[in-house]
Amino acid sequence: MEAFLEEAKALLAELVALPTVSAEGRALEEGAKKVAEVLEGLGLRAELKRGYGPPVVLAEGGVGERTLLFYNHYDVQPPDPLELWATDPFTLVEKEGAWYARGAHDDKGELVARVVALRLFQEKHGFLPRVRFVVEGEEEVGSPHLADFVRDHKEALGAEAILWEAGGVDARGRPYLYAGLKGIVALELRVKTAAFDLHSSYGAVVENPIYRLSKALASLRDEEGRVLVEGFYHRVRPLTPLEMEVLAEIPDESEALKEAFGVRDFLGGARNLEFNQRLYAEPCINFNGFHAGYGGPGSKTVLPAEAYAKLDVRLVPDQDPEEIPTLLRRHLEAHGFHDVEVVVLEKGERPARSDLAHPFVALARRALEEAFGEKAVLYPNMAGSGPMHPFLHHLGAPAVGLGVGYPGSRVHSPNEHIRIRDFERGVLALLRLLELYFLEG
Amino acid sequence: MEAFLEEAKALLAELVALPTVSAEGRALEEGAKKVAEVLEGLGLRAELKRGYGPPVVLAEGGVGERTLLFYNHYDVQPPDPLELWATDPFTLVEKEGAWYARGAHDDKGELVARVVALRLFQEKHGFLPRVRFVVEGEEEVGSPHLADFVRDHKEALGAEAILWEAGGVDARGRPYLYAGLKGIVALELRVKTAAFDLHSSYGAVVENPIYRLSKALASLRDEEGRVLVEGFYHRVRPLTPLEMEVLAEIPDESEALKEAFGVRDFLGGARNLEFNQRLYAEPCINFNGFHAGYGGPGSKTVLPAEAYAKLDVRLVPDQDPEEIPTLLRRHLEAHGFHDVEVVVLEKGERPARSDLAHPFVALARRALEEAFGEKAVLYPNMAGSGPMHPFLHHLGAPAVGLGVGYPGSRVHSPNEHIRIRDFERGVLALLRLLELYFLEG
Repeated sequence: MEAFLEEAKALLAELVALPTVSAEGRALEEGAKKVAEVLEGLGLRAELKRGYGPPVVLAEGGVGERTLLFYNHYDVQPPDPLELWATDPFTLVEKEGAWYARGAHDDKGELVARVVALRLFQEKHGFLPRVRFVVEGEEEVGSPHLADFVRDHKEALGAEAILWEAGGVDARGRPYLYAGLKGIVALELRVKTAAFDLHSSYGAVVENPIYRLSKALASLRDEEGRVLVEGFYHRVRPLTPLEMEVLAEIPDESEALKEAFGVRDFLGGARNLEFNQRLYAEPCINFNGFHAGYGGPGSKTVLPAEAYAKLDVRLVPDQDPEEIPTLLRRHLEAHGFHDVEVVVLEKGERPARSDLAHPFVALARRALEEAFGEKAVLYPNMAGSGPMHPFLHHLGAPAVGLGVGYPGSRVHSPNEHIRIRDFERGVLALLRLLELYFLEG
Repeated sequence: MEAFLEEAKALLAELVALPTVSAEGRALEEGAKKVAEVLEGLGLRAELKRGYGPPVVLAEGGVGERTLLFYNHYDVQPPDPLELWATDPFTLVEKEGAWYARGAHDDKGELVARVVALRLFQEKHGFLPRVRFVVEGEEEVGSPHLADFVRDHKEALGAEAILWEAGGVDARGRPYLYAGLKGIVALELRVKTAAFDLHSSYGAVVENPIYRLSKALASLRDEEGRVLVEGFYHRVRPLTPLEMEVLAEIPDESEALKEAFGVRDFLGGARNLEFNQRLYAEPCINFNGFHAGYGGPGSKTVLPAEAYAKLDVRLVPDQDPEEIPTLLRRHLEAHGFHDVEVVVLEKGERPARSDLAHPFVALARRALEEAFGEKAVLYPNMAGSGPMHPFLHHLGAPAVGLGVGYPGSRVHSPNEHIRIRDFERGVLALLRLLELYFLEG
């Protein structure tokens, strides 16, 4: 194994040993301190910023005419269900060419790859380039304080380009990068029709909350998944010709995913460009859960008094997560659902998409292609969400994500891991990116 | 306390001491034997019939030109939640003029009232009238074998009139009787859209089972509760002028119930005759439960793979519970819900309504009115369900229900009880009924 891989493994082992589960508030202080220590080991000045949830690690140093900002996080998802792990989640285990642990990919493996790439750059070129790191501790619980943090630390974070937390290769082994993330807002809809559950014989005269909530949910979208809430699309920024072109270049994964997921067909029979457009560039309403009344074996003649559903709304630029609950309430009122209450569960994240014409996007793509020796896939947006918007908004710089994972990394699941081969090439791509950005830019 | 009340209390104490919970298969053999012993104590010949679930107690004896059949059951609902009981559920406790125990009303208290009324008749008139008893042990789990039992024992059960299991006084203390029960069928609707749960970002392209099931449920009825399943009403027998008249005589409880239940309004704003008609004489679809995806605190970005709902359909003469699943499947197919599976949870019970013009109905009403000294309320049907149909069908006799409970009896709930005063008047009404039937009929 290359020396840098040995170093990476040792570093990753130290980081994953800290159970930095933000949902449970575990080991976050220690996690932040360890990250600061690692970054100081690189020659950066690091400090722990407080007052925004768990400490935010802010680090900077190096020389150069321009600055590159790395966004990462040191918190992880809970390891549950523990019984499905083949090895201890908080002990790094090397097995069959892969490194296993909670956070091995998301996001400690990515952070280590960046540290190691900077070390390689330093060894090869004799200096540390001008970089900054912001490493937060509550990404896995929706980064509730990060937008405020970025707003309050514009100067300290200032950079001409941002490297987003993670990436990797796709199902066919092609490296990919992305320039945006969807926004999200999480809501609950509630209906209460009576003071308590009744015997179901009263269903002949007493309203049923399952009916009311079902009807309300069914009114929110059509059979093809288009959202029927008035005003929902009015802030959606039309895709530019370049964005459309980039979407059209994404290989069609729809058939492979159909099989992998065991679905008969995608919404509206979407495939090819339409599939890519829906998945990566269109907003949607998704129902996460619906619970009411009896759910045990057999039957129970009960008329429940309450029903509730959880949903998340995925947003694209320039939709506003703060406006969505208002639009939903207005829709429900207009359709006679005065009895359906809308509760905001998480204030959400704004959608973000970097300018695809920005030279940094091409530079990152080139770095990937040189390191992997094959064409890289560029996604204008990923289907998922994250706190990218405040960076783009306050720093006025583009953000691009690339990294060391693969679709089988089991992020958020038991037996999370990265393949050492992916990690190695990911580090070389990062090194190449640093070279292109700082030496040839 | 009257001597017959002392006797009743002792008898009831013996019966409730046996935890005959049919859902758990507890003490059913002992329960059947005890009931047979009690009926033999009256001078009847009793036997335990096997091959139809828990033993069915069949008893007969006495003299007379015609026969009266009593239908009762010796099984009870589970006592859970135990912590909400103020006293032991299987020990009879007298407190503030009431007898507390699981089964104190449903149905051991009713059975004891009948035994005591027969004893009083015997003491007063010097002979036991010609009666039969059928006391089953699985009423609380939907009487799955009773229809077959009745079909196979037409001769042994033969009677010119049937006294149904229970009754009592209404919220205002008026005695009531009923001549029918709704039918019921319990179903589950299921939707599966993918092989496993997915990250909710895939909601942009992958169908959501909560949407599909919500839309399917919403298609089954309208805002006022009318069922939209084609053919659903086509077997509903129109109400006769007499049935309409009887419905119109039922005092309007809608305002009082609205307050008691904490509901804003009843379906379609029903009150007075319309309320009575819907509750007692119209079929309906009721949703008992809906479960899918995440239901814990906060939000979870999951796209569930499956959703299911439980529902019960209440039927009126001459709807057929066996036809309902077919009608539902046809409706779902016709409305594009090829992905919604219909599973029958319980084969159900047929609706039943006796001929209100039959002299036995008037006789029972007169007995109640004489014992209580006030007008009795007659319900053509109750809103609930029970295995009355096979009796009406195979014996060709009317069935009427009356008894010793009140709306606060907490049937199926913790602290089930009957008020001794209700019991006493209920027994006197039964005695009067026996006299009218056997001596003046």
